[in-house]
Amino acid sequence: MRGELTAKGRATRRRIVEGAAAVLRERGVASTTLDDIMARTATSKSQLFHYFPAGKDELLVEVARFEADQVLEDQQPQLGRLDSWEAWREWRDVVIERYETQGDQCPLGSLFLQIGRSTPGTRAIVVELLRQWQESLAAGIRSLQGAGALPADLDVETRAAALLTAIQGGVSILLSTGRSTHLRAALDQGIADLRRAGAAAR
Amino acid sequence: MRGELTAKGRATRRRIVEGAAAVLRERGVASTTLDDIMARTATSKSQLFHYFPAGKDELLVEVARFEADQVLEDQQPQLGRLDSWEAWREWRDVVIERYETQGDQCPLGSLFLQIGRSTPGTRAIVVELLRQWQESLAAGIRSLQGAGALPADLDVETRAAALLTAIQGGVSILLSTGRSTHLRAALDQGIADLRRAGAAAR
Repeated sequence: MRGELTAKGRATRRRIVEGAAAVLRERGVASTTLDDIMARTATSKSQLFHYFPAGKDELLVEVARFEADQVLEDQQPQLGRLDSWEAWREWRDVVIERYETQGDQCPLGSLFLQIGRSTPGTRAIVVELLRQWQESLAAGIRSLQGAGALPADLDVETRAAALLTAIQGGVSILLSTGRSTHLRAALDQGIADLRRAGAAAR
Repeated sequence: MRGELTAKGRATRRRIVEGAAAVLRERGVASTTLDDIMARTATSKSQLFHYFPAGKDELLVEVARFEADQVLEDQQPQLGRLDSWEAWREWRDVVIERYETQGDQCPLGSLFLQIGRSTPGTRAIVVELLRQWQESLAAGIRSLQGAGALPADLDVETRAAALLTAIQGGVSILLSTGRSTHLRAALDQGIADLRRAGAAAR
């Protein structure tokens, strides 16, 4: 179905997803109806089902995919150019500010709860988000290796996975407690240990 | 109310909480009724409300407290004696095995979803669990400092917080993806970096 859409159709579908994301952020997933989304996006019921034949669940999966993209988007351009320690520090600040601003509400997490944490649709979105995120961190580590700031035999994938896990853990604790102490500690420790691995190699 | 219970009363209350925890693990929080819990624990309605005057919500909070205790209990005795690198390795194995066995189901997480992630009751349980867990890790790091295996000026609280965050992140990814790769990577990297801090100080 998506493959058959014209450029105009894709733009309309995109507009509905973005509008739905905004309403869902404002009102919460549990208390938002299809009518709210139709009103916000000036879409008729027949239009909505034209673009999302399976209805609300299909729309929610698309909104989740959009929110997952936002997670990475919000870290750009810093996440895409981790080629100096100064760049890592800037990225670290962006991540902490993003999640402290978000506080104990997570649009993506709320959507996953609604769609179901273990459904194939949810899993695919999470796995792809983590993969891209980790790949960006790994690219940053590799660029530091290339510049001679990190040893060539450093286990890039494990370091990148550990840093990503530090963020997930810090955000998970922030969502449960409202406090960013652990996010800060884990991210700072992870980056400090990475720098130390570089300093030790000199 | 709890303060007034006799030893026998406390034992009965404890028996109900443990029985309820077992039923909730088996059937899931969403589909377990008070009748299921009464049947399993051979408790009458009047008994149940004698011990839990506020009803199901109060019982669920107590079960969550019990499950939080289990999280630490399952890591003993290893978590309580992290006084050598060998002890840290043993604890690491216990943590990974516990969460790989648990897989993508988390009894405590399910309870929190039911009670509400942001209620004061839930927050208090999470904060206390994290505090005790982190304190055990900090005690382990301090005992290695005492033995001269780690430098005296190491920032113990940040290291302990970062290790705890690594576990939370790894478990969170395991719950979302069914895979323990990140739990393993983050925990192994955290312990390896701690050891390296010790080796560097020699």
